[in-house]
Amino acid sequence: MYVGELLKSLERIPSGVPGLDPLINGGFLPGRLYLITGPPGSGKTTIGIQFLIEGAKNNEVGLFVSFFDNPKIIIQDMLKYNLGLLSYVQSKKIVFYDMAEYLLHINHKMSWSELFNKILSFISEVNAKRVVIDSFTSMKDMVRDPENKRIALIKFIRELENKEVTVLLISEMVNPDTYSEEYYLASGVIVLHHFIRNYTMVRALQILKMRGIPHDSNMKRIRFTSEGVRVYAEAPF
Amino acid sequence: MYVGELLKSLERIPSGVPGLDPLINGGFLPGRLYLITGPPGSGKTTIGIQFLIEGAKNNEVGLFVSFFDNPKIIIQDMLKYNLGLLSYVQSKKIVFYDMAEYLLHINHKMSWSELFNKILSFISEVNAKRVVIDSFTSMKDMVRDPENKRIALIKFIRELENKEVTVLLISEMVNPDTYSEEYYLASGVIVLHHFIRNYTMVRALQILKMRGIPHDSNMKRIRFTSEGVRVYAEAPF
Amino acid sequence: MYVGELLKSLERIPSGVPGLDPLINGGFLPGRLYLITGPPGSGKTTIGIQFLIEGAKNNEVGLFVSFFDNPKIIIQDMLKYNLGLLSYVQSKKIVFYDMAEYLLHINHKMSWSELFNKILSFISEVNAKRVVIDSFTSMKDMVRDPENKRIALIKFIRELENKEVTVLLISEMVNPDTYSEEYYLASGVIVLHHFIRNYTMVRALQILKMRGIPHDSNMKRIRFTSEGVRVYAEAPF
Amino acid sequence: MYVGELLKSLERIPSGVPGLDPLINGGFLPGRLYLITGPPGSGKTTIGIQFLIEGAKNNEVGLFVSFFDNPKIIIQDMLKYNLGLLSYVQSKKIVFYDMAEYLLHINHKMSWSELFNKILSFISEVNAKRVVIDSFTSMKDMVRDPENKRIALIKFIRELENKEVTVLLISEMVNPDTYSEEYYLASGVIVLHHFIRNYTMVRALQILKMRGIPHDSNMKRIRFTSEGVRVYAEAPF
Amino acid sequence: MYVGELLKSLERIPSGVPGLDPLINGGFLPGRLYLITGPPGSGKTTIGIQFLIEGAKNNEVGLFVSFFDNPKIIIQDMLKYNLGLLSYVQSKKIVFYDMAEYLLHINHKMSWSELFNKILSFISEVNAKRVVIDSFTSMKDMVRDPENKRIALIKFIRELENKEVTVLLISEMVNPDTYSEEYYLASGVIVLHHFIRNYTMVRALQILKMRGIPHDSNMKRIRFTSEGVRVYAEAPF
Amino acid sequence: MYVGELLKSLERIPSGVPGLDPLINGGFLPGRLYLITGPPGSGKTTIGIQFLIEGAKNNEVGLFVSFFDNPKIIIQDMLKYNLGLLSYVQSKKIVFYDMAEYLLHINHKMSWSELFNKILSFISEVNAKRVVIDSFTSMKDMVRDPENKRIALIKFIRELENKEVTVLLISEMVNPDTYSEEYYLASGVIVLHHFIRNYTMVRALQILKMRGIPHDSNMKRIRFTSEGVRVYAEAPF
Repeated sequence: MYVGELLKSLERIPSGVPGLDPLINGGFLPGRLYLITGPPGSGKTTIGIQFLIEGAKNNEVGLFVSFFDNPKIIIQDMLKYNLGLLSYVQSKKIVFYDMAEYLLHINHKMSWSELFNKILSFISEVNAKRVVIDSFTSMKDMVRDPENKRIALIKFIRELENKEVTVLLISEMVNPDTYSEEYYLASGVIVLHHFIRNYTMVRALQILKMRGIPHDSNMKRIRFTSEGVRVYAEAPF
Repeated sequence: MYVGELLKSLERIPSGVPGLDPLINGGFLPGRLYLITGPPGSGKTTIGIQFLIEGAKNNEVGLFVSFFDNPKIIIQDMLKYNLGLLSYVQSKKIVFYDMAEYLLHINHKMSWSELFNKILSFISEVNAKRVVIDSFTSMKDMVRDPENKRIALIKFIRELENKEVTVLLISEMVNPDTYSEEYYLASGVIVLHHFIRNYTMVRALQILKMRGIPHDSNMKRIRFTSEGVRVYAEAPF
Repeated sequence: MYVGELLKSLERIPSGVPGLDPLINGGFLPGRLYLITGPPGSGKTTIGIQFLIEGAKNNEVGLFVSFFDNPKIIIQDMLKYNLGLLSYVQSKKIVFYDMAEYLLHINHKMSWSELFNKILSFISEVNAKRVVIDSFTSMKDMVRDPENKRIALIKFIRELENKEVTVLLISEMVNPDTYSEEYYLASGVIVLHHFIRNYTMVRALQILKMRGIPHDSNMKRIRFTSEGVRVYAEAPF
Repeated sequence: MYVGELLKSLERIPSGVPGLDPLINGGFLPGRLYLITGPPGSGKTTIGIQFLIEGAKNNEVGLFVSFFDNPKIIIQDMLKYNLGLLSYVQSKKIVFYDMAEYLLHINHKMSWSELFNKILSFISEVNAKRVVIDSFTSMKDMVRDPENKRIALIKFIRELENKEVTVLLISEMVNPDTYSEEYYLASGVIVLHHFIRNYTMVRALQILKMRGIPHDSNMKRIRFTSEGVRVYAEAPF
Repeated sequence: MYVGELLKSLERIPSGVPGLDPLINGGFLPGRLYLITGPPGSGKTTIGIQFLIEGAKNNEVGLFVSFFDNPKIIIQDMLKYNLGLLSYVQSKKIVFYDMAEYLLHINHKMSWSELFNKILSFISEVNAKRVVIDSFTSMKDMVRDPENKRIALIKFIRELENKEVTVLLISEMVNPDTYSEEYYLASGVIVLHHFIRNYTMVRALQILKMRGIPHDSNMKRIRFTSEGVRVYAEAPF
Repeated sequence: MYVGELLKSLERIPSGVPGLDPLINGGFLPGRLYLITGPPGSGKTTIGIQFLIEGAKNNEVGLFVSFFDNPKIIIQDMLKYNLGLLSYVQSKKIVFYDMAEYLLHINHKMSWSELFNKILSFISEVNAKRVVIDSFTSMKDMVRDPENKRIALIKFIRELENKEVTVLLISEMVNPDTYSEEYYLASGVIVLHHFIRNYTMVRALQILKMRGIPHDSNMKRIRFTSEGVRVYAEAPF
């Protein structure tokens, strides 16, 4: 076992976000779950799409599981970037799963296990290697057994390890001053910040946590560019 | 599908608020729901009326759904602006729906679904293209199933997409330090700020979020003018 | 309808508080409910009395509905001001309704509707044009159906419009950092502030909100004078 | 009625606290309830005792109702001041009622009404003109119907007016940043402050509210002297 | 009665903490309960032991009631100080009562009364004059009737007065910004502070309250020395 | 007994974290439970592994009880450090117990006692002298009787004393401003801090509490090195 593991820790999953990989020693670890959190409008979904496109470029299937937005709308919103999302959707390298539509259809609340199993079966079906879940907060609102969050998430993470699927789990930031449970369970946590300085909006990204990878946890300036979110090797000021 | 979508992302719904459209690349996207939030007296309702008048000028029917104020009172209060609201009301280009009166009449609490369906049927009836709902907070207080907020709002948003109706959802700001759920579900969030500086009230507007549209999220000074709320291309100081 | 409304928006109800009317374009609008809030000892009740005396001078009947203080005590406390309250009470131009005594007598809790109806019937009985309710907080504490606050208040406000009665609703400030529901439902909100600066108490008034009336929302110094509360056209410092 | 009231508003009940009466135009009003609040060790009980001694000097009976301390202990603790408490206790001009002992004895919880009636009957029995209740917080903890606080307190205050008994109600400060209900119901509120400045304890008193009496609400330095708490006509620094 | 009381107020119970007695006029009052509170690692238990050793030196029996630590462990931890605790334990001048072990043994929750009675019976059994209870917070967690805290504590305090036993009640500080009930019920409150200044830990002690004793309530520097906690007659900086 | 105890207080368990032992007089005390807490990504797990490796070097068996991460993943993540973990795992000097897997398997919630007994039986089975539990927060989430936390932890701590097993209990920091119960029950508390200064992440370690051991509680800079976490004898700035 251990030689394989050793080698795996050298593998990297490039993030697709310009400027991010150098901060995390080349990319994510395969088979892990990473949390990305930030305030409204901070670029969480955009980073998720960039992550899937990076895989699609290398012929890996990427899955976007949406718990609120209509996929059509996400795709439309992404047209403002020169990311070529449309062609990957057409070639089925990037697949959207409209979980909200499904939930509206069945019209009852599911348990944490059922939701995660649903995601896992769809991963198998399309043979996805990269997955974005948007958002964990939306999931929390929709389950009927909120008390099982930690145990269900632990189980899901272990299934991902087996399948060697890498997941970006998007989380809506409610209170910027507390750490919630999933920060501790994820292999890594990327926090998007925005603050007003002299009435100007400044944006930054921070690698709060990145297990098994030497990383730079200082705040880095980010900007929205025509290629999506880009990280700069500099402080926000 | 996608060519149509692509084109739609180029369409713009002008906001009717002088100085706002340049910040959002020409206007809102059609078929979307936008949240406008701010403290009491910050101009949320006024901006809603300006939005409907802009449509009425172009012969689009606008619907104002009121969950507390008597429409007569809203109209009276708007007379202090030179917006010409009265003539659009008389020509039925702007229609007020007094939901509070309806709720007082039926005298029982409705569910989230029932409320949204009521709004949707009225939209169909008057063939509205622009809708203002005042306010989401009032709705939250009046439903009998608060736990279904997210799922009902997701469903409503999807219906709006189908109908290509653009909605401004007004939300009362309770605690300026937290983000509530609807910030994440809306396609865009406009925040009105006011602060006391040297005992003087200063007002500002900020585009906190605007999906699919390159936008300027810095704080901009606003003032109440005789034409309603106006946004200035400058910081509040 | 609309011509009448238009004219009504030009009518003004002078506040009776020296220095306040210039900030609100001459006075309140008739038939509206205004909220006045502030910390203990900030002058809320005094302003309420000044409001009724202004009406009494013009022969309008004013009604003070007390949810805690004995009217006798309020009158006694007001004797320190040269407002001539006593003679208006004797000529029945200002009438006190001791709701607390009534509630102590019936010895059970009433609903929001019942309380508001009680107030409305007393308004009719004395034919009041100006009403002060002291306080909304006390009402909240005494009803048996707190969950109906918003809907009952909306209904009450609509009845006031019909009767063309102007109401000052006094509210006890509990937490100065949050806005409560009634801030949004009232046509206007006047906030009384006090702060300690170099161990000295400084008092100020602010028009937080004033629908349908151009107004000055900067903080203004106030002082207790022998004529009651007076507003100065200057910052508190 | 009103001439008597007018005269009564000229009457003053001297507080017995050196330096306090000049801040409140000579003293308290008769027949009123005043709240005194502050952090632990700030002198609330001491001020209560000074208040009773002032009455005893003028041959008025004073009643101290203790909801926690053994009267013996209070008397012992007051021996450090040259107030002569002992002789007034011996001449029965100051009477202690050990309510805690009573409650320990009956061994069940009483309602707000029962507690206040108990106090009222003891007031009648000893014919007290001045009463100290130590403390309201302790009462709150011991009643079986906390939801009736406001209504019971309103009733109690009205009985005091009838009996022309002046009450100091001591309240333990839990959170210095919020105003609790009794601040609004009392005729006056005196707040004791302490703060650390350069690691030195500084004490101050502030008249937050004083209905019917022109008063100075700036912070005043206080010190513990051999005659009890003394107020200085100066800021704490 | 009163002459005896008068004399008793002159008696002092030296604290055993070098530098503390000068701040409190020579020592504690006999038969009282004092609260000592502070953050983890601030020296609360050490001060408790010093208090018992001071008594033991004068042949008074001291009782340490432990609600969590094994007495063996406490003794071991105190070996780092030159306090000679071991010999007093061997001569039974200091007795440890392992209440936690007892509670683990009986395996059900006790009421506040039962817990305090248990302590009182042990006090009688060993004829203790000084008692340390470590900790009140632990007690709060272990009782089955939390709502009876105040009344049970009042009763306990009265029993201590009768028995003339002086108690240090240790309390874990949870939130440094609020005062809890026991602060008001205790005859005195000693607060241990620690703060980081330039990344250096600074420790201080403050006499927040000390009934019946003139005292210095300024912050005083403390240090851990080989004789336990020592108070310095200086500010922490 | 006491001579043995005396000697035991001289024994030290080196921590395995370079730079930490000099701050705590050579190391931990045997048979104690220490809490290590910090925000996500602050090095808690890494320090736990270093602690076990230090024991393994001296031929002591170390046990890592994982309540969320798959041991395989922990081992993989530790490969980035030159700690030689793999060989100690292979020689069974360091043993991982995958409690999460067990809990997923049995599929029901356990009580605090059952969880601690499970850990104790595993300690006996492998004859461990050092134990890391990762994490207490995860345990809290998974038990069915949260109200028994304190009593169960007290019992567990006493069993550890008997077995002379030293435990590092990892705790996830939720709110950096409050102290939770386990801070008071543990023999020592080590807090990991991180803060942003000029947009740069700075890390520090602080010995908040260390019973029975003279210690340095100032903040010390830490860094992640190729040998794991290292403590520097300097302030973080």
